[in-house]
Amino acid sequence: MLGWAIALHGGGGDIPIDLPDELRIPRETALRHCLDLGVSALKSGKHPLDVTELVVRELENHPYFNAGKGSVLTAQGTVEMEASIMDGKTKRCGAVSGLTTVVNPVSLARLVMEKTPHIYLAFDAAEAFARAHGVETAESTYFITPENIARLKQAKEFNRVQLDYTAPTPKEPEIRGDSQIGTVGCVAVDSAGNLAAATSTGGYVNKMAGRIGDSPLIGAGTYANHLCAVSATGKGEYIIRATMAREVAALMEYKGLSLSEAAAYAVEQSGPRGTCGLVAVSANGEVAMPYNTNGMFRACATEDGFTEVAIWPKN
Amino acid sequence: MLGWAIALHGGGGDIPIDLPDELRIPRETALRHCLDLGVSALKSGKHPLDVTELVVRELENHPYFNAGKGSVLTAQGTVEMEASIMDGKTKRCGAVSGLTTVVNPVSLARLVMEKTPHIYLAFDAAEAFARAHGVETAESTYFITPENIARLKQAKEFNRVQLDYTAPTPKEPEIRGDSQIGTVGCVAVDSAGNLAAATSTGGYVNKMAGRIGDSPLIGAGTYANHLCAVSATGKGEYIIRATMAREVAALMEYKGLSLSEAAAYAVEQSGPRGTCGLVAVSANGEVAMPYNTNGMFRACATEDGFTEVAIWPKN
Repeated sequence: MLGWAIALHGGGGDIPIDLPDELRIPRETALRHCLDLGVSALKSGKHPLDVTELVVRELENHPYFNAGKGSVLTAQGTVEMEASIMDGKTKRCGAVSGLTTVVNPVSLARLVMEKTPHIYLAFDAAEAFARAHGVETAESTYFITPENIARLKQAKEFNRVQLDYTAPTPKEPEIRGDSQIGTVGCVAVDSAGNLAAATSTGGYVNKMAGRIGDSPLIGAGTYANHLCAVSATGKGEYIIRATMAREVAALMEYKGLSLSEAAAYAVEQSGPRGTCGLVAVSANGEVAMPYNTNGMFRACATEDGFTEVAIWPKN
Repeated sequence: MLGWAIALHGGGGDIPIDLPDELRIPRETALRHCLDLGVSALKSGKHPLDVTELVVRELENHPYFNAGKGSVLTAQGTVEMEASIMDGKTKRCGAVSGLTTVVNPVSLARLVMEKTPHIYLAFDAAEAFARAHGVETAESTYFITPENIARLKQAKEFNRVQLDYTAPTPKEPEIRGDSQIGTVGCVAVDSAGNLAAATSTGGYVNKMAGRIGDSPLIGAGTYANHLCAVSATGKGEYIIRATMAREVAALMEYKGLSLSEAAAYAVEQSGPRGTCGLVAVSANGEVAMPYNTNGMFRACATEDGFTEVAIWPKN
């Protein structure tokens, strides 16, 4: 069975099951909108590399998710975004870290892949590269919103590094639900079996400036080869140690597992409950979206007509 | 059969087989010295994590290898060093990129692992972290030596990104041999099966400022788990796409290959001839040092008395 398939995520974590409608509905709407965009692009024959870039750009532009516009802040109150993208057939890939003004980090990762002999550019030089290529940038007020300043303040009060979407206390309901944002990512395969994956993030709330997480790391947050494409979300340090995205592909390639078996095993092995999740598609159009957190903002569609937009486990 | 083992490298590449004695001998001497240091440390009961850090520090301090003191220069004439270290049993790890003044990047990677909730710090913030922890730093003249300036000038004349140790032309023999330097790394296992790996580099001559290579990336340049420890060298972009260090472990874990089979296969699959190599040890004290370049500065020793210091294939 061959067919196109797409899956995307807006982050996984401790998402309160009683998330108020005014916070839940716009996120579900955004996930559905991004899914429709990706499905249309696949149906019109766009390459999965273009599709994943397109969808992740859209997720970056939404203020609801922790990437691009919605990026959370470092301990210094700055924004430091990172992203990566990978093509399965050629294994060509690009990655960026430490971006402070680039509106769509995933597209800069693509440019690094296309326009340099390198894979990965970071910090000031990545910003300079963005300017040299005329990509869209924005003032810090675009990223450093009152909501993100409030999240950072809250995280500092709790004096610990906090996953962006963790609900730090039931005493602050007005921020609690609104902080339900995380890494974004998209994986896609076309009916010819071309695969691609892309991931983008603002990192942790209150992370140390200069911290690099899993999202820009090929094999950790993002991976694609001839068998599957994977984008991860969760506590980056677990995902890095586990090389989680590559793990899914390695389990398929070397242990003969199916996509869903490999994806479930990779999540189970990568960290304790509450730490990680991923979206993945295989070359023959299967989808897997396992997570060990209590929820994951996610959506998928396959050529045979299956569609899902979900946050918590499906009954 | 259990036993301690250690392997280290000073980079692989197109090392001229007729490397003049005045260039060959001090490098062989340095490799032997670093090996002796590591063997003594293992014999005295030091943990492999401490042993690999110790040996890589020593390699960083030698001007002959492309790491620490010997780091090659970016296109802007600056130095940007990176390193990582990983403990096999716990999978704890640390990594740094974009260092400009830190004398021993591998020890800063260790500090990130020990003293932060993160794994990976980069550029200005990594430098600030180094200062906050009082690690040894040096003026740029310590790194930016006349030899390195000459190498950069030569690379720019050839107008291409160049692997540090590539012999760019037979017309410049005085630089040709002297440019035979590369990434450094060390892997070790003690007789209890504790494993560790560490890698450090200055990157490519004439690389874009801000470029991150494979050396600091867990799973690419460095990896250790309960089965093996691996440090890679070569053209970083191939190693990243192949998640080469993790590949060795995945082939052992999921395909049941021996260390030497897994290491050889990982090198063969990771890039075309002339691109990469690695050193690896297994939990039961085996050593593998495959490469597809014409040579690799390397050394190893095992508890059963085997010792090797070599640059080219052994007859």
